[in-house]
Amino acid sequence: MPLAETALIAQIRRLAKAPKRNRIQVTGIGDDCAVLRIPPDHDQLVTTDFSLEGIHFRREWHPPESVGHRCLTRGLSDIAAMGGQPLAAFLSLALPPDLPQSWVTRFLRGLLALAKKYKVTLAGGDTAQSPNAILADIIVVGSVPKGQAILRSQAKPGDRIYVTGTLGGSAAALHELQAHPGKKLNPRAYPRHFYPEPRIDVARALREKKLASAMIDLSDGLSTDLAHICEESGVGADIAALLIPKACVGKSAREVSLALALDGGEDYELLFTAPASKGIPAQLAGVPLTYIGVITRAPAMCVRDANDVFHELRAQGWEHFRSNKKALSS
Amino acid sequence: MPLAETALIAQIRRLAKAPKRNRIQVTGIGDDCAVLRIPPDHDQLVTTDFSLEGIHFRREWHPPESVGHRCLTRGLSDIAAMGGQPLAAFLSLALPPDLPQSWVTRFLRGLLALAKKYKVTLAGGDTAQSPNAILADIIVVGSVPKGQAILRSQAKPGDRIYVTGTLGGSAAALHELQAHPGKKLNPRAYPRHFYPEPRIDVARALREKKLASAMIDLSDGLSTDLAHICEESGVGADIAALLIPKACVGKSAREVSLALALDGGEDYELLFTAPASKGIPAQLAGVPLTYIGVITRAPAMCVRDANDVFHELRAQGWEHFRSNKKALSS
Repeated sequence: MPLAETALIAQIRRLAKAPKRNRIQVTGIGDDCAVLRIPPDHDQLVTTDFSLEGIHFRREWHPPESVGHRCLTRGLSDIAAMGGQPLAAFLSLALPPDLPQSWVTRFLRGLLALAKKYKVTLAGGDTAQSPNAILADIIVVGSVPKGQAILRSQAKPGDRIYVTGTLGGSAAALHELQAHPGKKLNPRAYPRHFYPEPRIDVARALREKKLASAMIDLSDGLSTDLAHICEESGVGADIAALLIPKACVGKSAREVSLALALDGGEDYELLFTAPASKGIPAQLAGVPLTYIGVITRAPAMCVRDANDVFHELRAQGWEHFRSNKKALSS
Repeated sequence: MPLAETALIAQIRRLAKAPKRNRIQVTGIGDDCAVLRIPPDHDQLVTTDFSLEGIHFRREWHPPESVGHRCLTRGLSDIAAMGGQPLAAFLSLALPPDLPQSWVTRFLRGLLALAKKYKVTLAGGDTAQSPNAILADIIVVGSVPKGQAILRSQAKPGDRIYVTGTLGGSAAALHELQAHPGKKLNPRAYPRHFYPEPRIDVARALREKKLASAMIDLSDGLSTDLAHICEESGVGADIAALLIPKACVGKSAREVSLALALDGGEDYELLFTAPASKGIPAQLAGVPLTYIGVITRAPAMCVRDANDVFHELRAQGWEHFRSNKKALSS
């Protein structure tokens, strides 16, 4: 282990205040493995997500605190999508040799502030030198009462489709950044892009009240993530364009386009289905829930326009920065 | 998610034969999180390890099967170091767009062959496009009976120090590759470099027989990993050069230098301590155990030469390919 890595681990241990032991962590950072004690009668949830410079973020666009926050949000949002409680995070971090120390400190600050908010312990990880770009992989471990994880595969024909919050806000920021190279965006005008809140609390409430039949988080975009639900459940979907809750962004709080709301990724809202018999409140845990369509028996996805004309809804395949111009201009 | 990623996930699902459910996996690959059921009365172990092209392997030196095998060995070896049983693995894999499909297939073949040997399920992960190099992060989840994980921090003055197998074999291969650019090595002549076996079985036997007080796997090299044990336990160590079991490598099975055995990394053998009262067999689970020194109260590390002269043993800091010439030439 090179000295730079040793110093990084020491910094993470200090910032994470390890070896603090909490209700699930038996040892602090500094052994070959973390030792965790999952609550009895719970299943364990595990998710891993890359945050790669040039793919998921750019140093000139994203403050380091935002990169750290978004890195952890990716994992927490996956735990939320199962109705779970996040418990511990692991960070694998590879850094280029010329990266300023202040970048790392600010990145960790952003990540750890979000971890603290959700009582998630940074329990371990790996460090390495990177050939050139910053590479992070976040692993989040969570728990859910045994057998109660909300899966993608349990949507049934006739179920209603809902989303939390508003959509397209994250992609709108990216659209601005790509359209005006060199422009700096104010993170406060685009909070869903720079500091997306994982929907942990609303997801847990949905599970506890047994409202959702299937659920996924909106990381790839509504059209793509709805396709995942349909594929895993062997069903189709019919959604109405007029019902899609579009995000309002920028200083003037202008509404995003339908294309961004349908295909833009990284909103980290939730998409869930519920039997028609369930009464779904307009708001849960302080987050709006919006009815957008129904699950169908025929395995195809349609979007209905304002004139009640049906169009095929195609999963646009959110590709982060690389080729999202295609997705954003459609 | 780009189409290339979707194809990769489909390939992994097919090769991993998911959604096969085993004793711990509740869902197959294809949801936001994997859902695992850890055996009751067990603590859970989690470890993450990067395998980065240019840092941990080179495409021109390592067959893809070897890269996949070594990637998983890094995680399994960490589970072994705690005396644990590996259960599930998660693979985050970012690939450059021009990588031949055959490379990925062969990489997965190497990784999954080792997973099968230790009954480890590939339960999930993440995929992304990489700007240029191949990036893998392996996460392994394991279990150990509650409170029985063997930590780095429990070595006591007077404990004896042991290693499994022989040392320096992996670094010797790297030495050859660096000394003769363009040369291809026969993996069979350097098995500990190309296909290192994680010491799962011997570690579990040490735990079950309650023989080891502290343990670590030799990933960074004996001098560095012994320093980790000493630091976490607040002790020192005195080892004898003549006792270090040196690997024999190459077609002629020549013995490696003392420097390689002391400082070479990535052997994935185990270093453990045991109270002097414990009878340690010469072999356990088919693997030789070698006594190499004792834990001391004074927090310094010494190596004794053939003339019984003490030298300070310094942690050389294994830095993989980048600057390991320093470590290898010492």
